[in-house]
Amino acid sequence: MIPEGSVGVVETQTVRLFDDGLTTRSGIVLPEVQVAYETYGTLNEARSNAIYICHALTGDAHAAGYHAGDDRPGWWDNIIGPGRAIDTDTWFVVCSNILGGCQGTTGPASINPATGEPYGTDFPLLDMTDFVEVHRGLARHLGITKFAAAVGGSLGGMQVLQWALDHPEDLGRALVFAASSRLTAQNIAFSAVGRQAIMRDSGFNEGKFLTRGTAPRKGLSVARMLAHITYLSEHAFQEKFGRSAQRGELAGNFGIDFAVESYLEYQGERFLSRFDALSYLYLTRVMDYFDPFADARALDTLKADPVRFLLVSFTSDWRFSTEHTRRIVRHLEEARIPTSFREIQSTWGHDSFLLDLPDYHATVRAYLDKAAEEIA
Amino acid sequence: MIPEGSVGVVETQTVRLFDDGLTTRSGIVLPEVQVAYETYGTLNEARSNAIYICHALTGDAHAAGYHAGDDRPGWWDNIIGPGRAIDTDTWFVVCSNILGGCQGTTGPASINPATGEPYGTDFPLLDMTDFVEVHRGLARHLGITKFAAAVGGSLGGMQVLQWALDHPEDLGRALVFAASSRLTAQNIAFSAVGRQAIMRDSGFNEGKFLTRGTAPRKGLSVARMLAHITYLSEHAFQEKFGRSAQRGELAGNFGIDFAVESYLEYQGERFLSRFDALSYLYLTRVMDYFDPFADARALDTLKADPVRFLLVSFTSDWRFSTEHTRRIVRHLEEARIPTSFREIQSTWGHDSFLLDLPDYHATVRAYLDKAAEEIA
Repeated sequence: MIPEGSVGVVETQTVRLFDDGLTTRSGIVLPEVQVAYETYGTLNEARSNAIYICHALTGDAHAAGYHAGDDRPGWWDNIIGPGRAIDTDTWFVVCSNILGGCQGTTGPASINPATGEPYGTDFPLLDMTDFVEVHRGLARHLGITKFAAAVGGSLGGMQVLQWALDHPEDLGRALVFAASSRLTAQNIAFSAVGRQAIMRDSGFNEGKFLTRGTAPRKGLSVARMLAHITYLSEHAFQEKFGRSAQRGELAGNFGIDFAVESYLEYQGERFLSRFDALSYLYLTRVMDYFDPFADARALDTLKADPVRFLLVSFTSDWRFSTEHTRRIVRHLEEARIPTSFREIQSTWGHDSFLLDLPDYHATVRAYLDKAAEEIA
Repeated sequence: MIPEGSVGVVETQTVRLFDDGLTTRSGIVLPEVQVAYETYGTLNEARSNAIYICHALTGDAHAAGYHAGDDRPGWWDNIIGPGRAIDTDTWFVVCSNILGGCQGTTGPASINPATGEPYGTDFPLLDMTDFVEVHRGLARHLGITKFAAAVGGSLGGMQVLQWALDHPEDLGRALVFAASSRLTAQNIAFSAVGRQAIMRDSGFNEGKFLTRGTAPRKGLSVARMLAHITYLSEHAFQEKFGRSAQRGELAGNFGIDFAVESYLEYQGERFLSRFDALSYLYLTRVMDYFDPFADARALDTLKADPVRFLLVSFTSDWRFSTEHTRRIVRHLEEARIPTSFREIQSTWGHDSFLLDLPDYHATVRAYLDKAAEEIA
């Protein structure tokens, strides 16, 4: 049973782009790039009603609706659909899996045509601009030269920011949620410990695990458990779990005794079935190095062709706190880019951007309604 | 060169206690317990000027002074010494390594006399009360029936609290810094992920690594790196490291590129030479389960024979925030226990209790000066 307001049953499509190769920011050329994507709604004749969704670290192309036979919808189904904040009665929505990912788009686990083996660590180190170039490649394939908006949270928001800085002509509006223009030392520290857990796993085999039949499964699940702590607020953990026992009373052992331990273990295990350890290394590293405003001329292109921005932060987000968003706002306002900023009250932490919070979704809806008037 | 104000060159001593065995809270009997300890200053004739120091998770008996040949003093040297806040011209200071530890006191890496092999995971699961019983055993050995004060930070403060609750007759004053009477779900989550990193390391061998010649070194270093993130405030990380590169410019790789990564790796590696993975599991688990006020009668004994409390928290401590200390204060005040509480301004996070912060040390000094008047 597909619930009301859903885009219904959807399929992930794939396309091969960049027949002449994609030169990544590192200078290394990927001879071909496959991109997995989904679309929802209908592109209008003027091709002016498209919205691009950029996913976060472990997201994928399946943002909304149901794959045939699934009982869980896409990761952002609560915001995308007929009558929802990103209203598919108005908008044609595109979401693609990120370059370097592992859910249909070319990444380190893909076959390197030059060797017939998986790329592994021969895959080039990526940059935020590489993600954007692949999104633009898909846009050309779809025949869309300008999106009414690009939208993303966390790493997704960072892609939207980069896109607006480099190619403002592509975007009418940029919606950036719970993101950062520059990770703090503590952010990098969490990211680094997760990577170390993966790279020190005996199954990692110096990154050659794909051809050696091993996998750093334990390290990857530890990295995921650790990251999960940063996705929720302390309050959210306390609300959800407190000190309650997984089964009946606390047993007193080293295993999974508290409910919070069981939750983290489940998150760690579930992650293994859908994520590749090398993608985790590649994508987290892009976030660490991201620092666009370090270049004093970062805003020059955008200043000449301003994109309107909506920035949203969440009060209890301690991964990318409101301070991160304020920093982006300051840079944009100094450059006189039209900027709206909302800090949303939420007790749920960083993952708030994925939740159906009425103030948040109302803010997004109102902002996109203005965009809809302009394209009408 | 021993600096002025130091207690000078010291030695760790060991003693075998509990000839008739120590029955742990779990009911399992340890047939003998070795305790490593140090003392500084001189016990007066009335045996009334003793102070007991309880160390934190990874501390040891070497709190102050220098071991012969070492160029680094004990872990709390800045507060213990002639003229320092815990003034060894006045006080006879005792510090012992905790039960279950790995720095001279019996723990899971010790030989089980019943088998001639290391205990490993046959070591009994411990409770905060077991730590206190061993401290009391050492006190009897030293001929001290009452301490003017017990002092500790973090897990050390939790031992002091437990001691005062169970045996208030042993203590004149209890000084509890940056501690908690009950870990939150987030606290347990960090603790659990560290343990999982250790237990999932292929060198862990279901806890039998000591007899199999392996060691979960990678897991233990990951656990330590992770824990270190929680010991410092976000601000402290930013101050110390920001986004600066380990060498010259950022290189762009998966290894150790940012200075903060190098710092964490160093902390992780250094830890391996001094700490046992099983001790880490046993001691962190005691903290998770600690919840003395869950028993409505927890304060009955203390109420009948009140110990004076000084509780100190630090503004930027996000491991055991001021809220944790306030909870202890509320319980004590409801029971009409004489309680002083100070929140110290500090930007350094949980580890502030180890630092030489003038307001903090002045508070401790003034509090102990009152104790000195009473014993004079």
